Amino acid sequence: MSAYRIGLLGHGTVGGAFDALLAERAQSIERITGRRPEITGVLTRSRGDFADLLERSDAIVELIGGVEPALEYVGRALESGLPVITANKQLLSRHGEELWSLARERGVTLSFEAAVAGVIPVVRVLRESLAGAHVERIHGIVNGTTNYILSEMTRSGSDYGEALAAAQRLGYAEADPTDDVGGADAAAKMAILARLAFSTPVHFDDVRFEGIAGITRDDIAYARELGLSLKLIGTAERLAGGISVRVHPAFLYAGHPLASVNGAFNAVTVESDAITEITMSGPGAGGSQTASAVLGDVVAAIGGAAALGEPLERLEVVEDVVSAFYVHMEVDDRPGVLAQIAKLLGDAGASIKSVVQRGIGERAQLMMVTHPLAQSSLRGALSAIGELDYVHASPRAISVIDEEFM
Amino acid sequence: MSAYRIGLLGHGTVGGAFDALLAERAQSIERITGRRPEITGVLTRSRGDFADLLERSDAIVELIGGVEPALEYVGRALESGLPVITANKQLLSRHGEELWSLARERGVTLSFEAAVAGVIPVVRVLRESLAGAHVERIHGIVNGTTNYILSEMTRSGSDYGEALAAAQRLGYAEADPTDDVGGADAAAKMAILARLAFSTPVHFDDVRFEGIAGITRDDIAYARELGLSLKLIGTAERLAGGISVRVHPAFLYAGHPLASVNGAFNAVTVESDAITEITMSGPGAGGSQTASAVLGDVVAAIGGAAALGEPLERLEVVEDVVSAFYVHMEVDDRPGVLAQIAKLLGDAGASIKSVVQRGIGERAQLMMVTHPLAQSSLRGALSAIGELDYVHASPRAISVIDEEFM
Repeated sequence: MSAYRIGLLGHGTVGGAFDALLAERAQSIERITGRRPEITGVLTRSRGDFADLLERSDAIVELIGGVEPALEYVGRALESGLPVITANKQLLSRHGEELWSLARERGVTLSFEAAVAGVIPVVRVLRESLAGAHVERIHGIVNGTTNYILSEMTRSGSDYGEALAAAQRLGYAEADPTDDVGGADAAAKMAILARLAFSTPVHFDDVRFEGIAGITRDDIAYARELGLSLKLIGTAERLAGGISVRVHPAFLYAGHPLASVNGAFNAVTVESDAITEITMSGPGAGGSQTASAVLGDVVAAIGGAAALGEPLERLEVVEDVVSAFYVHMEVDDRPGVLAQIAKLLGDAGASIKSVVQRGIGERAQLMMVTHPLAQSSLRGALSAIGELDYVHASPRAISVIDEEFM
Repeated sequence: MSAYRIGLLGHGTVGGAFDALLAERAQSIERITGRRPEITGVLTRSRGDFADLLERSDAIVELIGGVEPALEYVGRALESGLPVITANKQLLSRHGEELWSLARERGVTLSFEAAVAGVIPVVRVLRESLAGAHVERIHGIVNGTTNYILSEMTRSGSDYGEALAAAQRLGYAEADPTDDVGGADAAAKMAILARLAFSTPVHFDDVRFEGIAGITRDDIAYARELGLSLKLIGTAERLAGGISVRVHPAFLYAGHPLASVNGAFNAVTVESDAITEITMSGPGAGGSQTASAVLGDVVAAIGGAAALGEPLERLEVVEDVVSAFYVHMEVDDRPGVLAQIAKLLGDAGASIKSVVQRGIGERAQLMMVTHPLAQSSLRGALSAIGELDYVHASPRAISVIDEEFM
């Protein structure tokens, strides 16, 4: 049969790795699919012509990243009836619904395994293996940079700035790390996973996110005494009133399947009644890992993969979620302090699961873990506690994922 | 569109769970695929007629298990041009090639996600996500019963018989546990995974397997001092001369992704140059988990899934594999013993990585971990060591998976 001609947009780290991997695996793919994939042309900022590439291609692989000009190119390729494979999480979390809809209209595939969670095939698993399941919740470590930084702070006791510098030296963090450490990168990925899991439109703007720049080495050290480890966790879950999709630092108990995922790794846990839970883990996106995920989509596209279904219903985004919390306070260590703080928390509906106190005198550190309560209730209690005269600075709170696992 | 009529063979634990899950999810599947799946008839030992069921079905779901009569039914269904979905590892590890070949001829799908590793979608990941990858090695904990027993021995210090009895009480082990504890169940699954990973025919008889009945609580306790945990591990790997597919107890270092998989769980690690490694874990096959995997295949079959490709080449099965080993000996504790044993091991090419000695006098226990060497060389050295007059009983050896992970 004829060659499968791929028009490649972008030739940076991932584009270059894809080009090399495709050449290496082309013969083996031909034996599996009957068609030999080949790069028919490359478009970069400095070379190539998009209209010409469209003419000569059976599929477009978009590895430019960012919204423009990727949006224009992907839209035009789908309009022309070409399948598109992309690793672009920004594009899909902001314009996914219009692009998936266009792909359905034209009867072509828009594939995007490489946009989320590196080599972990979570997109395929959600779209296919779990298509018949009722997914209740996804927890993910979907940003390798922040997981590396938090692992390094935990391992070496270094502070955030030192760990970030180490990540930059090793190539795990960019010179401008804002998108990663601020949580926006993880938020875009969670928007895409939530769309797949719940068949409801989820836009980047629906995801509340918070990064790791405010984490101190004390948070990590004290929480360790409570048996907790700190990760930047993305959550997508069904709630009574709709769904919640969010990204924030969270403490995990040692038995949680994500607690032992260290370094520049990604991992995703999917929960549903019928399956209980599946956990998938692997290296975060490096060039060759992303290229491998793109190549899997190319193989599927040659076989003629299905388009993503229409969203089934629009679920509301719930803002006030229930969670257990780690709370850190600096207090004067004098009689009655703990009782009064516990009362304020109790009035808000927070019962205390464990307490650690450190230091004596005017600057004692008080760390607590609560049982689950509404975020808004906790916020109210912390604001009242912050006004007590023997409490220095504002109390700090970090979510604790408090599920029981084997 | 019309209903998607499923003829169901078998209505035991898994068949019943599938029936119930299908009813619960039918509407949601109709929204995704456009067709509403329904059970059009059931065949069990006591009711139903196969020829009649074939007439009335769009697909056959085979949940009888065992080779006959499943082989006849699946063959006849494929002959008639019906897609078949099966959870039958015995059937596929012994007759897979003829059935896949028949399915290709007739242009229909034979799906089997539920045959391997419970809810973990490793079949789909190998067939699709990694279709373009060059898989080097798979390590799997693919039998929940044995993993439960070994976890229980580790946790409670109980011996094999006690842990087996506990597993039986909890429903994790059958009254006749032979297939699970002897390793045959895991061997059938590894044959199927190896076929997918390497695109070469792999028959159940190509898999060497050894179970866990010989494991003592001492093995587990002493190995713990060396930082090792014991699992029943299935391995499928490419070697210089071909492939090796095998199942045996193995010790893992704490950093290995499978080392922390405890209880009745399954987990699979897939390694390839481009992806480094992916690990997937989840509950071993219970009724509802298996039913969920079958349902995922039903959804794919409605969409028209691809047939499994022809095997690409026949790779030789290599018998003498290289591994690190844990060696356990009972010796008289007297001068020169360790030196002479170390020399015999050194002559065979085994260098010692760590040693633990316990007890003194006539019945000292000597435990060693070697660096990797050929199994045949180790066997030669152990046989020579066994003949030394201060060595009591035969030395015992268990593989150690000695890869470096983060």
